[in-house]
Order: sequence, then C-alpha cells, then structure tokens
Amino acid sequence: MFSLTVADHVMIAHSFRGEAFGPAQRVHGATFVVEAEFRAPRLDGANLLVDIAAARVELRRILDSFDYSNLDTLPQFTGENTTTEFLCFHIHGLLCAALSEGRLGAGAAAVESIKVLLRESPLAWAAYEAGVPRTASA
Amino acid sequence: MFSLTVADHVMIAHSFRGEAFGPAQRVHGATFVVEAEFRAPRLDGANLLVDIAAARVELRRILDSFDYSNLDTLPQFTGENTTTEFLCFHIHGLLCAALSEGRLGAGAAAVESIKVLLRESPLAWAAYEAGVPRTASA
Amino acid sequence: MFSLTVADHVMIAHSFRGEAFGPAQRVHGATFVVEAEFRAPRLDGANLLVDIAAARVELRRILDSFDYSNLDTLPQFTGENTTTEFLCFHIHGLLCAALSEGRLGAGAAAVESIKVLLRESPLAWAAYEAGVPRTASA
Amino acid sequence: MFSLTVADHVMIAHSFRGEAFGPAQRVHGATFVVEAEFRAPRLDGANLLVDIAAARVELRRILDSFDYSNLDTLPQFTGENTTTEFLCFHIHGLLCAALSEGRLGAGAAAVESIKVLLRESPLAWAAYEAGVPRTASA
Amino acid sequence: MFSLTVADHVMIAHSFRGEAFGPAQRVHGATFVVEAEFRAPRLDGANLLVDIAAARVELRRILDSFDYSNLDTLPQFTGENTTTEFLCFHIHGLLCAALSEGRLGAGAAAVESIKVLLRESPLAWAAYEAGVPRTASA
Amino acid sequence: MFSLTVADHVMIAHSFRGEAFGPAQRVHGATFVVEAEFRAPRLDGANLLVDIAAARVELRRILDSFDYSNLDTLPQFTGENTTTEFLCFHIHGLLCAALSEGRLGAGAAAVESIKVLLRESPLAWAAYEAGVPRTASA
Repeated sequence: MFSLTVADHVMIAHSFRGEAFGPAQRVHGATFVVEAEFRAPRLDGANLLVDIAAARVELRRILDSFDYSNLDTLPQFTGENTTTEFLCFHIHGLLCAALSEGRLGAGAAAVESIKVLLRESPLAWAAYEAGVPRTASA
Repeated sequence: MFSLTVADHVMIAHSFRGEAFGPAQRVHGATFVVEAEFRAPRLDGANLLVDIAAARVELRRILDSFDYSNLDTLPQFTGENTTTEFLCFHIHGLLCAALSEGRLGAGAAAVESIKVLLRESPLAWAAYEAGVPRTASA
Repeated sequence: MFSLTVADHVMIAHSFRGEAFGPAQRVHGATFVVEAEFRAPRLDGANLLVDIAAARVELRRILDSFDYSNLDTLPQFTGENTTTEFLCFHIHGLLCAALSEGRLGAGAAAVESIKVLLRESPLAWAAYEAGVPRTASA
Repeated sequence: MFSLTVADHVMIAHSFRGEAFGPAQRVHGATFVVEAEFRAPRLDGANLLVDIAAARVELRRILDSFDYSNLDTLPQFTGENTTTEFLCFHIHGLLCAALSEGRLGAGAAAVESIKVLLRESPLAWAAYEAGVPRTASA
Repeated sequence: MFSLTVADHVMIAHSFRGEAFGPAQRVHGATFVVEAEFRAPRLDGANLLVDIAAARVELRRILDSFDYSNLDTLPQFTGENTTTEFLCFHIHGLLCAALSEGRLGAGAAAVESIKVLLRESPLAWAAYEAGVPRTASA
Repeated sequence: MFSLTVADHVMIAHSFRGEAFGPAQRVHGATFVVEAEFRAPRLDGANLLVDIAAARVELRRILDSFDYSNLDTLPQFTGENTTTEFLCFHIHGLLCAALSEGRLGAGAAAVESIKVLLRESPLAWAAYEAGVPRTASA
C-alpha cells in the first residue's frame, strides 16, 4: 500500500461541555497541525498517488472553512464537542467529498482510504482513518 | 477507526546480554519518548475516545514504576533483555491492565487495541501493537 | 555562558485589535510551546545552573495563570494585544519575579538573563530575552 | 505486531516529466529523511526484532547507491519519475532483497512486512508498505 | 531584545567545486528549511515586531527566486559555491533589501538585525546573523 | 556572524550526588542529542565555515570517548556530577582541542567561538558557549 501525506495547521478557539473536560470547559484554543494521508494500492503513470500541490490546496481550502475562528460559533459544529478526535472525523468527511468531486485530480481515483491526524500539542494527538465511499460512477 | 495518542518520557539505565549487542553490553542509558495510542471504532457521547488527562495520568503512573532507574536491578525485568521492542510490549501489558481495571474511564470501553511506541534516539524507535484482551464482564 | 532550558505548553484563546491582524481579529486560539532559557556564567557546586525540576514546576505555575483561558477576559491582559511577542515579555517578567523571590533555588543566583520563546505553529515563533533585574540585596 | 524503525537521509537532485509537475519539471532537489520500518509478530530470544546496528548499516548501504546524485542520470531510474512515492517502493525492494540474502541477521527471519517512509519537507511525505516475499527456503 | 521568526522551505539542486566537497561535487540536492528571524529592541503600538503574514509573504517571494531550481544555472549564483552558509548570507541580503524598501511594514522600522538559518538535514544546519544596514532616510 | 552546526547523539548511564537531584540520585540514563555549533565572522574561499563531514567525524570521535557507558565509572568524570550543563562544557573543551590541533581543517582557523547544546528530553536541554582559546601560533 502506498500513502502520501500533506500537512498544514489551523489556530482555533473552542470550549467543551461536560464535567469530564475540567478546565477545557472554558473557552480556550489550539494550534492543530493537520496531517492528511491518502492511501492507494498503486501509483498512476507518472508515479504519483495524488499531486502534492493539489492536495495542499484542497486541504487549505477545507481548513479555511474554520481557521482563525471560535468553533463554538460556527453552524457546522452546532451541538458537537469539537474534540481533536471529532475534528479528524470532520476533516475526513470533507476530504472524501473533495475526492469524489474530482478536486484532487484523475490520479486520485485509486485512493481507497484517508487518515486525518491532528496534533494538539507535543504530547497529544488524535486520528481518524476510514475508507473512501465510492459511488457507482466513481 | 479513531485513535488518540498521549506522549511522555523516561530516563533509564540498562545493559544487554549477548555479543550481538556490541558496546550496548555495557551499562548505558536512554531517554525513551513513549507514545501510547488507543484505538476505537467510535467515540463516546462527548466525542471523546479516552480522556487525554486520564490517559496522561495513567501513562505517567506506569512509567513511574521504572523511571530514573537501572532496569537491570528491577524485579519485573529479571532475566529479560530490556530492548526497546520489549519495553513497548511491557508497557502495552500495563496499559491493557489499566484499561480492564477501569482506570481510563467509562468511555474507554470502546478501545479495541493499543499501540505503544518508544523513541530511543532521533534515528531509531520501536513499537508494539495488539488488541486489548476482553474479559466476559468487560 | 551556560544556559538551561525547560519547555511546556499552553492552549489559549484570544483576539487582536487592529486591521493589520486580518482574520486574527476574530476570536481564535493557539497551542503555545513555551521554552524558558536561563543563562548564567557559571554552575554551582553540584554542576547545576538551575534545578530542572524546580524550573519546570515554576514555569508550570506561571502558565497555569492563563492556561485554558480566553486571554481577552483576563485582567492581567486588559488593553493589550496578546501577540506571541508580548506573551514572551509577559512570561519573562513572571520568571524574573520568581527568580528574585528565590523560588528557583539558591543556585539560580548566578542567572544573568532569561530568554522566553513561544512557538505558535511549526512556521512561526517569537522570543524575548533580557537581563534579570538585580535588587541591592540580591 | 512488533515494529522496529531506523532512519537516515539522502540529498539528491532530479526532475520530473509531465505538465502536472509544474516547476518540479526543472532540475531541483530534496533532502529525503528515510525511515525503514520492519514488522514482525514476535521477537527473537534476545528480545530483538532486527539488530538496530545491522539495520542502519544495511539502510546506509542501500542509500549510498544514489545519495549525492542526480537521479536523472542513474541507470536504475531510467524511464521513471523518481517521485517520493516511487523512491519508497524502490528502497522497499532493496530492503526485501537484503532481508532474503540474510544481511539483516538470523533474527530478521520473522519479519513479515516492511514500510519505507520518505519525508521530502516538513509539509509532505510518502510511504510504501508491503509484505516481504518469501522463497521456499526462507 | 525581541525576535520574531517565520519558516518556509525550498527544494533545490546544486554542485560544489573543490576536492574538499567529496561526493558533493556531483549534482545533488537539498530541502532547505529556511528560518528568518527579525530582532528588535521594542514592539510597535499593536505589540507586533513584524507582521507574521507580511514576513511569510516576503520570505516566500525571496525563496521563489531560486526554489525548484538547479542553483548552478542561475545568474545570481555565478562563480559561487552555494553552500548552506552562503545561502544564509544571500537570503539575509534580500531580506535587508525588503526591509529597507518598506515591504515588511512600518512596524519593521525597529528591526536592528536579522538571522537566517537553513537546515539541510536533521544533522546539519547553518546560519548568518548581522545588523540591518540603515540609510540616512530610514 | 556565520555559524555551522552538526548533530549526533549518545546513550549513557550515570547518577548524581546531592539531595537536590531526588530520584536522579539513582543510576539512570539519557539519550543526549548533541549539537555542536561553530561560529566565525567569515567563510573561506570555498564558502565554507568548517567542513560538515570533518565536523561530524570529529564530533563522533569525541562522543565515542563516553558513548554507551556509565559515566560514573569513567576516569575523566571522577568527582564530577555529569549534569547536562557540565557535559556541554566537557565536550566544548574537547572540540576546542580538536580545533587547535587542526583536526577540523584549515578553514576552521576563523572559528571564534563554539556552542555545545545537549537535549536530554523533549522538555529540557542545556548549552555552553565560549570563545576558542588562541595560542600565539594560531
């Protein structure tokens, strides 16, 4: 299995609901380093899995939808605790959509799964990995 | 699959038996950066896999059992070469025990496997990953 | 010149006033990795500059005064843009106070200057370095 | 599953053919940090997966076959775009050969798969992971 | 003294003249992580040293003048061994020019010196630090 | 001022004398990442400060004098607490000797000072920086 990973980061504020979160129930923030890993069993004719430049542009476009924001105030996160784990899942969904809409190029057709990893500090990080949903026409 | 990783470190001395180890047969030491990764197929109602604070406390408790020590003198390592690979396996067992004893919280019930990775230098690291044993009552 | 550095991190929210800040005028956040460097021309009799454990405790105590918070709501930051540069200066002041109050141990008497560095992302960081004010009795 | 990883690096020049590569069609270069991960279900009697020193020597020997070179001029890469993904695959093949020729020691007999990861920059990396081919006599 | 650092990277090819360079006399390459540090004794009214966004844009503009290139073929490097040390000096000159032309904003008027650091591998890096030339009108 | 830094690492055991050291009074160990920085006001005719390959060889030779050892048993450390700060000073002295004996090449004649930095963990490091003693003939 091949994989190709691109990284970027966001700087967001948010708060959590639930006593288990302790001081993190207050509005606080994080620099999340975001790593998006694309996995495929083969490369295309140019020996590419996905084009790095295209992947970086697409990841940046997705991150712009909530970068430099207080996630508590954004409609797409209403009712959710925006934990590191959850944000991995959220970005994963947006990357799958980008893939199915062809925004990562023809070569990306071989991508079978995506892993999104977010580092919240040098001492803690989370990830979500799952297969890419395939439509009949894909 | 979701994963949540917490990191810490220990500073230990030890020596190895066997000619294959060369100069590492002498008493020497290492700073091991320890990364404990918990894997689960779903999050709990608060969007958590395991509570990061609880995971850090439990990992610290486990590491305290041999931190700042010469592993050659500790009873739990008698007769073992405490290689990086072996220490991953050892910590994995202690984390599984912590999980089964409920010390990582109710949400951790979904954890299916644990990976322990130890970095011994910028140029070498090892890991052990295995499923979490489940008792009938778990 | 000797130096000894300890590191920790905080996860805070804040916002900036001024058009130059662009999207950072919104409430957002950051994980700041904080590096506190103590500089002295000599070591004490035990070959220590400052005790690492004491330095880590003191840095943690200082960071707890604003960790997991929205800096916009804390009285000590009223009227200030809490830029990375400014926060270095702020923490520097608190470390100098700790030093002059003897909370870093007798060995720390030789410390002549302190540098505080904050990493806001893998691509940007700031620092403030200045001498430690000496009172007549110090 | 156990794993053991050793790391090294190369500094190479190359160019790519195909409009999709944009400015990377020009002769440019990269420092590739190379991570070679060996995976095995068990350790040997000395608690080793593979000997770290032997693994580092073998990885270095492989990397010397193209380090400090313009890959466009080397016969083993004729007709190939030497993308990061492809170089992972190339090194993987050479490590499998080293394993089957016994150059990683007797303990390495348990190695079932190898993952090769190349970091081309702080923001992009690729990997190739696959099982180790076994001959009848292995 | 305050400092503000921004980082980026380039991927270049080049070769060196002189027997001392050994295998590096061949065309090879490097990913250089470039860190540009601006130093000033005070912050502006917004608590900024230089605007991070402006600094990143300007550094990127400078790096674009030789990124994805074979430095041996670029006119600005004719007759020079483009060692890591020399490239630090070269970028330092371009940053000083940007500063004196006002491309880093009004706040940058307080910048007294600039340090440019280039990492060529995890095991080697170089830097050049010097004061910023001041014209009569600056 | 130019600087050139090379890095390597050692894995040692040791213990400290003095109640202030707490659990570090026991035999324990560390992986020290060692960074040796050479500083000079100018480059040689080949645009080099010191030859990286020569610097790496010399640093390795120095580190071999105590790598994979229990420092408590080595004659050169008798009566000393081998703190991170002290080891920086110790290595600094050996590098100055290497320089004065010409083992870093003719170009190194311009080196005015050396800084040695040792990282003992991701959360603590120390350094020693001082001028290079010059003899009459140098």
